[in-house]
Amino acid sequence: MTMSMYAASIPVFQHMLRNLAFILEKGEANAQARGFDPAALTTYRLAPDMLPFTRQVLIACDAAKLCAARISGVEAPKFEDNEATFADLRARVQKTLAYLETVPASAIDGSEDRQITIPVGREKTRTMSAQAYLTTWALPNFFFHITMTYAILRHNGVDLGKADYLAGAAGR
Amino acid sequence: MTMSMYAASIPVFQHMLRNLAFILEKGEANAQARGFDPAALTTYRLAPDMLPFTRQVLIACDAAKLCAARISGVEAPKFEDNEATFADLRARVQKTLAYLETVPASAIDGSEDRQITIPVGREKTRTMSAQAYLTTWALPNFFFHITMTYAILRHNGVDLGKADYLAGAAGR
Repeated sequence: MTMSMYAASIPVFQHMLRNLAFILEKGEANAQARGFDPAALTTYRLAPDMLPFTRQVLIACDAAKLCAARISGVEAPKFEDNEATFADLRARVQKTLAYLETVPASAIDGSEDRQITIPVGREKTRTMSAQAYLTTWALPNFFFHITMTYAILRHNGVDLGKADYLAGAAGR
Repeated sequence: MTMSMYAASIPVFQHMLRNLAFILEKGEANAQARGFDPAALTTYRLAPDMLPFTRQVLIACDAAKLCAARISGVEAPKFEDNEATFADLRARVQKTLAYLETVPASAIDGSEDRQITIPVGREKTRTMSAQAYLTTWALPNFFFHITMTYAILRHNGVDLGKADYLAGAAGR
């Protein structure tokens, strides 16, 4: 495989979403083992004006989905954003993975210079090349929210290590 | 510009390290404005068994430096890892950026299938293609530590927003 827009996007999203699903499993198992309500984790915020755990997971999923849709033109399913439990969140990851499976490399490769317009805040937009969008916007945003998900669990004593983040089940 | 190993690595590291430098400036300014010892931030850990802030910054810098060195073959400077203050950390980011400037695209492009061996833990190694290493190891690790740096500051009340992470000074 040679580096391409596809190789730099879809397989990366897939790999990390599978690791995210593994991290979610460990979070839920930890709540069960310690005997507390899993909602204590799923509603947790690292700061009062930060988004809660559930939103970190949903935004990670949507960062992958929306990037794939924007650079490929393959329409993405809309989801209701009503996930509350770990099971809901894992299902959201799986739905996102199922969509990514439908995006062919041929729809993405060669898209480097395609102009992509994205919303920034509530009223502004930004337009940039698909390559700049992928490398300096979509991927950093995607990794940010997966790491924040990990950080919330780790801050609350869930026994995670970076191998879980980097390699998921394969890291054990 | 078309997607390539260089485009997927060095400019991404440079962009995010500049944003990291901006985030560090905001952290220090916040400590000054609120009148507390900046070491309260630079030594902070999100969990007792996580690495402190200083190490998150150093590892982010080294994730970029070591990846660049491994896939390009351009020797990287060794640093002493004795940074303690915000000024030290910003200098480390600048030294890392200075090294990245010396790595030519020609040394990286076409490296997709080069075999890269990396240490994993204290005794094991892993070998994978440069492309797999970049996309599923080095970049995820790099973003992890930049996000963890951000998370520590944000958890401690520093007024950061995701625009600072995604766009640094240009996001204001």
